[in-house]
Amino acid sequence: MKPYQTALLSSLLIGSLSACQTQVETATTSEAIKLQQTALASQLGYDIVESLTVEVGPRLAGSPKDIIAVNWAMEKLTSLGFDRVYKEPVQVPIWERGEAKAKITFPVEQPLVITALGGSVATPAGGLQAKIARFDSLEALQQAKPEDVQGKIAFIDQKTERHITGEGYGKSVGGRSKGAVAAAQKGAVAIVIRSIGTDHDRMAHTGVMRYQDDVPKIPAAAMSNPDADLVDALLKRNPDALLELQMSPKNAGFNTSYNVIAEVTGNSKPNEIVLIGAHLDSWDEGTGAIDDGAGVAIVTAAAKHIQDLPVKPARTVRVVLYAAEEIGLVGGKAYAEAHKAELPLHYIAAESDFGAGRIYQIDTKVNESAWTEVQHALSPMSFNGVALGNNQASGGPDVSMLPALGVPVASLRQDGHDYFDYHHTPNDTLDKIDPAALAQNVAAYAQFAYIMANSTVTLTPLVTQSEK
Amino acid sequence: MKPYQTALLSSLLIGSLSACQTQVETATTSEAIKLQQTALASQLGYDIVESLTVEVGPRLAGSPKDIIAVNWAMEKLTSLGFDRVYKEPVQVPIWERGEAKAKITFPVEQPLVITALGGSVATPAGGLQAKIARFDSLEALQQAKPEDVQGKIAFIDQKTERHITGEGYGKSVGGRSKGAVAAAQKGAVAIVIRSIGTDHDRMAHTGVMRYQDDVPKIPAAAMSNPDADLVDALLKRNPDALLELQMSPKNAGFNTSYNVIAEVTGNSKPNEIVLIGAHLDSWDEGTGAIDDGAGVAIVTAAAKHIQDLPVKPARTVRVVLYAAEEIGLVGGKAYAEAHKAELPLHYIAAESDFGAGRIYQIDTKVNESAWTEVQHALSPMSFNGVALGNNQASGGPDVSMLPALGVPVASLRQDGHDYFDYHHTPNDTLDKIDPAALAQNVAAYAQFAYIMANSTVTLTPLVTQSEK
Repeated sequence: MKPYQTALLSSLLIGSLSACQTQVETATTSEAIKLQQTALASQLGYDIVESLTVEVGPRLAGSPKDIIAVNWAMEKLTSLGFDRVYKEPVQVPIWERGEAKAKITFPVEQPLVITALGGSVATPAGGLQAKIARFDSLEALQQAKPEDVQGKIAFIDQKTERHITGEGYGKSVGGRSKGAVAAAQKGAVAIVIRSIGTDHDRMAHTGVMRYQDDVPKIPAAAMSNPDADLVDALLKRNPDALLELQMSPKNAGFNTSYNVIAEVTGNSKPNEIVLIGAHLDSWDEGTGAIDDGAGVAIVTAAAKHIQDLPVKPARTVRVVLYAAEEIGLVGGKAYAEAHKAELPLHYIAAESDFGAGRIYQIDTKVNESAWTEVQHALSPMSFNGVALGNNQASGGPDVSMLPALGVPVASLRQDGHDYFDYHHTPNDTLDKIDPAALAQNVAAYAQFAYIMANSTVTLTPLVTQSEK
Repeated sequence: MKPYQTALLSSLLIGSLSACQTQVETATTSEAIKLQQTALASQLGYDIVESLTVEVGPRLAGSPKDIIAVNWAMEKLTSLGFDRVYKEPVQVPIWERGEAKAKITFPVEQPLVITALGGSVATPAGGLQAKIARFDSLEALQQAKPEDVQGKIAFIDQKTERHITGEGYGKSVGGRSKGAVAAAQKGAVAIVIRSIGTDHDRMAHTGVMRYQDDVPKIPAAAMSNPDADLVDALLKRNPDALLELQMSPKNAGFNTSYNVIAEVTGNSKPNEIVLIGAHLDSWDEGTGAIDDGAGVAIVTAAAKHIQDLPVKPARTVRVVLYAAEEIGLVGGKAYAEAHKAELPLHYIAAESDFGAGRIYQIDTKVNESAWTEVQHALSPMSFNGVALGNNQASGGPDVSMLPALGVPVASLRQDGHDYFDYHHTPNDTLDKIDPAALAQNVAAYAQFAYIMANSTVTLTPLVTQSEK
């Protein structure tokens, strides 16, 4: 073919492609609005989280219930008729909670409600008893004189602020994750924190903590907010108050768990992937309803509504139910590693892991020059109450490492004003989920996944960390 | 003196008494309004309940903490400078909670949150496991065929309705108090009830239960509302679900506790008594803030505001902090017995035992012909948001036996819409008390006690039960 012929054909093709793009966009918008209606009229999402919480319940990574959850997920996804259902092994550390008891023993006996932080070591079998060194924050503990902490139980007494965004959690959670190291470096015999939670319930909030190889490992626990109030009031009366802790958690090696995956095969670009994820594991004290049974239900039901369409979207929609998020994003990291070669084919990824509150905004992390077009494409979501936000998304815990690997992400922002009332407590149960709000989430994820799976916008390259 | 002279003097005296009465009423009204202002501006009530919950905390009748509470009360009342402070011994049964664990073991393991009901016996040391016979109510259990219950764990699954009056409690509490007898009569090996509570927290509500001498004693527990939901959902899937219970409570004899009493001595009729009471004991899982630390604080602070007046009212205001209410009105019954001879001198009695919600109405139980006058006398309470109600009061648990013994009572009705969210759970802690609402209660009790201690209305005789 001669050069001018090539150019002409190209021009025609481009012209017809553009017309085609517009058609695709119109059809996609129309289908997205129908998907919203379908999802809002369906109780599939609620049925899924009901099934997971009732038939499995708590499913701590590495525990026997974790494997029961994996089997549940394989069966549920298979029964829903996805094009592909498979699982990928993930090695996860085993941590067993054991018992956790605490009481003030002087100047008066007062039993306290505590819980071991995830990963904590045990106290000596007979427990330990010491005075209390109270700090307003992790930073205050880090700046303390060692002689004020030596031989005592460090107590980080920071309240968690309530925000729709959940940003209060970020401000206080350092005390949970880093407090044991900071306390041990000053010579503390244990650390107890005020729960990272916005409630006034007599329940302690667990969550993962970390040790450092060169620092002694000391027991780490959280106490409920009312108990922290009580300890405060006692310390104001008598700074020599004694706290007794008895905890028997243990680390017990490793087990194989699985990322469980389902796919709606793309119609024309089946190798390209729109990933919507959630994590299958949960903490062990509730039934893992809002964290993250809701997410499992939301992304599974959203994909199922797409699976049921007569014409599938261009790209493959992949549901990933991650293993072992709670104990350190283990499944998310394993996925990124196992799918390294395939990551360039990941068009965009998003994880639902913030409960079951309504989605009020969608943010993205895409190439800056593509952002306006992406927002335009996602605009049907506004009919479902989802505003178009910014381009600063992180995508959710298990996909948070993907932008650095070149994969665009989106964050569908949920109303989290009460999320940290229940998060990581025995109170994380089904009754905390509003079925209507859950359905709104399903609709939003269905729209997001469908629109992205048909999108003609180029989202990459992402700015690198150094450019940012 | 000649008859006509006597008649004249009488007439004059009556005339002057009437004028005097009017003066007394006006002065009383004026003082009652000042008392309201004093009480609302004071944080004495909150300081008292803070002190009791922090310095004593849980104080189960018959336990070592019960005696600590008695000592606290003696010291607190003495330090407040009442005219008289004393205590009267009460024999109370000792019940120790031990541990209570439960889980569904089939078709899937699901740990449940339960608590032993007060007075329950233990399971065998290794626990017990059985199928579940579920009933909508105590009545349904009582009407069941024995073959449907025999060898099973009876489960009364009645939800408690939310009302400002707390009347939902009365509708469902029979399952707690009488369920064990009904279940054992049908051959059940244990009984578990849905908690008598209006919350959705993962906390079980304890409370006293009763056995009957001629019926086998079986273990009795309550499970949290979310757990009852879970068991329901499991039973719908599989009626052969198995429940395992392990409980180690025990009854351990008797101990001496005390009704603790303080008095503001009456100015002109010191032998006549206006009794305002609350109970000092609490269940052991919370710190007894709303039940009944609030009541202790309310009546103590109310009496203290009267104690501080330059001129005391005519009658003695007696604060009674009852022992062992929770386990069967033990202190209330002991008081009625010990003060039998003095009961005719009890002008009126009222107990504060319904949390710390605002008082919206005052009801009385007085002679019908006196009711209008009493309502008129109490009308200053309306300035504090307290409406005048009816003449059907019971007076509160520990004074509920007094009307039958001829003593008038009053019920100062509190807003109880959230009382059964926390009642008898670990969540009964100080943070559930609104200091402003507590002060409104103090003001209402101060006004009530002062007005009644000065009242010139004759409240007796009460109608007898048969007349009613």
